[in-house]
Amino acid sequence: MSLIVQKFGGTSVGSVERIKEVAKKVARFRDEGHDVVVVVSAMSGETNRLIELAKAMQNQPTPREMDVLVSTGEQVTIALLCMALHDLGYGARSYTGSQVRILTDESHTKARIKEIDDQSIRADLTAGNVVVVAGFQGVDESGNITTLGRGGSDTTGVALAAALNADECQIYTDVDGVYTTDPRVVEDARRLDRITFEEMLEMASLGSKVLQIRSVEFAGKYNVPLRVLHAFQDGPGTLISLEDEQAMENPAISGIAFTRDEAKITVLGVPDTPGLAYQILGPVSDANIEVDVIVQNVAEDNTTDLTFTVSRGDMLKAEAIVRDLVEKTGAREVKTDNRICKVSLVGVGMRSHAGIASKMFKTLADESINIQLITTSEIKISVVIEEKYLELAVRALHAAFELDQKAAS
Amino acid sequence: MSLIVQKFGGTSVGSVERIKEVAKKVARFRDEGHDVVVVVSAMSGETNRLIELAKAMQNQPTPREMDVLVSTGEQVTIALLCMALHDLGYGARSYTGSQVRILTDESHTKARIKEIDDQSIRADLTAGNVVVVAGFQGVDESGNITTLGRGGSDTTGVALAAALNADECQIYTDVDGVYTTDPRVVEDARRLDRITFEEMLEMASLGSKVLQIRSVEFAGKYNVPLRVLHAFQDGPGTLISLEDEQAMENPAISGIAFTRDEAKITVLGVPDTPGLAYQILGPVSDANIEVDVIVQNVAEDNTTDLTFTVSRGDMLKAEAIVRDLVEKTGAREVKTDNRICKVSLVGVGMRSHAGIASKMFKTLADESINIQLITTSEIKISVVIEEKYLELAVRALHAAFELDQKAAS
Repeated sequence: MSLIVQKFGGTSVGSVERIKEVAKKVARFRDEGHDVVVVVSAMSGETNRLIELAKAMQNQPTPREMDVLVSTGEQVTIALLCMALHDLGYGARSYTGSQVRILTDESHTKARIKEIDDQSIRADLTAGNVVVVAGFQGVDESGNITTLGRGGSDTTGVALAAALNADECQIYTDVDGVYTTDPRVVEDARRLDRITFEEMLEMASLGSKVLQIRSVEFAGKYNVPLRVLHAFQDGPGTLISLEDEQAMENPAISGIAFTRDEAKITVLGVPDTPGLAYQILGPVSDANIEVDVIVQNVAEDNTTDLTFTVSRGDMLKAEAIVRDLVEKTGAREVKTDNRICKVSLVGVGMRSHAGIASKMFKTLADESINIQLITTSEIKISVVIEEKYLELAVRALHAAFELDQKAAS
Repeated sequence: MSLIVQKFGGTSVGSVERIKEVAKKVARFRDEGHDVVVVVSAMSGETNRLIELAKAMQNQPTPREMDVLVSTGEQVTIALLCMALHDLGYGARSYTGSQVRILTDESHTKARIKEIDDQSIRADLTAGNVVVVAGFQGVDESGNITTLGRGGSDTTGVALAAALNADECQIYTDVDGVYTTDPRVVEDARRLDRITFEEMLEMASLGSKVLQIRSVEFAGKYNVPLRVLHAFQDGPGTLISLEDEQAMENPAISGIAFTRDEAKITVLGVPDTPGLAYQILGPVSDANIEVDVIVQNVAEDNTTDLTFTVSRGDMLKAEAIVRDLVEKTGAREVKTDNRICKVSLVGVGMRSHAGIASKMFKTLADESINIQLITTSEIKISVVIEEKYLELAVRALHAAFELDQKAAS
């Protein structure tokens, strides 16, 4: 018997029928003898409906009142799920964030959890009840309702799991786990049985949007085993946990992430002086444009080339800013390209395996794919290539690193 | 400058536009220098929507979870009204029942208020804010959300006014005040400037459904002046307060109430023994049938006749119960009539004015209206007559007691 925290998102509780399905799934875990704490989001569509109402009242709705308003979404779901569990004959009690007491700071609409009082929940679990908690919300020191920002229900689940020292935090989604890469691109993409927090962070930020990044960071920090599962299909899902010390023999690469939505800006022939990167990228960042890859080559003839990538929608804006700087920095030329993409190999095994990078470059060369930029981190190698080669590159790398084959364990 | 509690019901806050209208009205009172506490209901239709969802989950939804669910209705309204006030440039802060701390007993879906903590509200008023409170809801000792039952927002308003020692509790409705009688029956019906709590109770229970009876009782108990006003029309409304000692010269009658929805059951020739009324009415009440008028005449030949009225929809059920008792009680016969109505004169002045009853009976006799039953209380005389005479009787009495003419004051 273990203590499990289960989180169901808006789509999973999007209708009366789906809430009843969730109740049945929770009931099965109770039947197996587990203690269960369920965290739910608002029914899909409800949060947007409430935001529309708010915007009809005030152009920039007051954050404190916005939280009072949207927190009703999850409050509706916790009550309905408890009723569905009662209807199946299971004990269950609902808790708003304020009732648990999920204490947060005072940053309305983007609050951070400071402390969770687990007393009432523990008492309810001991009494044999399923505890159903409203995700995404908390309360500040003064009793004001706060929310954690959109998608914050994952964070509630992980935080509760950490506070209760739960055996596992299960995040139910519309996919049955984390894959070696996007199955729409590579037919042979394989569901991973497990992956480390770090790998998941690299996969998530690179476009495999299964989990909220913040909740993965949180889970890693408090070492809460996370499991991604499909809400309405059975299966083991993918376990996200600390690196398994005994798994040093695991393959170097866990997965291949990619993103299409990038554009590249290169400033050629910039005089190589200290502060150069700041002179160019400072104004870009001041304009609230997020910069992804940054590459600067070694200087030659006292000039250098600086290349960076931005989200494709920001390219024209970023280009204009950089062109304004040409005279000031003494640069020779600015070039842009929005037909690029980024492909990344991710894996903690990379740390102890030599030759990953060269194998990656050789694989791409064999397919005559030209590499435009390269960046690396401890557990990731990313390359920027022409967009039309995206699928070819991902498939070739997936095969070369044998990601379709389950690791011997 | 005074402290005013204003209550707006579901229809008054039934849309974005109407909430904005309410905000403008509240703002006008602030401009006049008053401190304002606003109590709001859920937007019309919202509570029913939530109840439908609950019934889809569970045949008899768990009361605790029902309260968690339906209390979201008012929570939405308080946030939206605060946003609307902010948009107009006024300070405002919302409070759920739990945040105020409106402490109630633990009777979910029909809780009673035990205590109100006025500290936070007073601090907000001192800071110049409008305080917007969710009606209909509270919290029990253990932190569970409770609701006061349908229509309970009036009670919240009165209870807050009592706790804050407010100068007036204004109840905004879809009528511009309390009338001498139903204007749809008597064209000359006149809005009353003031009426006593007792009179209002008699008027309300007799069919002039402007206010929740419980809130009037509550206002009377704590001597909170209540004012009934139209939500979207200007006007002084009707003030409901304690009897004005200086107003002894006021007319004897304040208004005429009536109800159509009644049926009469008469048990003839019952042996006049102790416990007779209980023997007959006990089983009726056990069947959850509410009995209104009860009349028993003096016995003759050791038998008597007992007549009572019930809501028309309950007549057949009540008749069946009473017929079953005929043998047991030794009664001679049971007669029923569902073509009756009840007309009542209400007025505290009655206490000090002789001849009201005889004037009433003469007025009806002059119109050849036969009186079937008569009951009286300290401030009310009711007669049961044939239903077809209802309008005629009310109009004749309205004219006879000169209710269309404003009292000299």
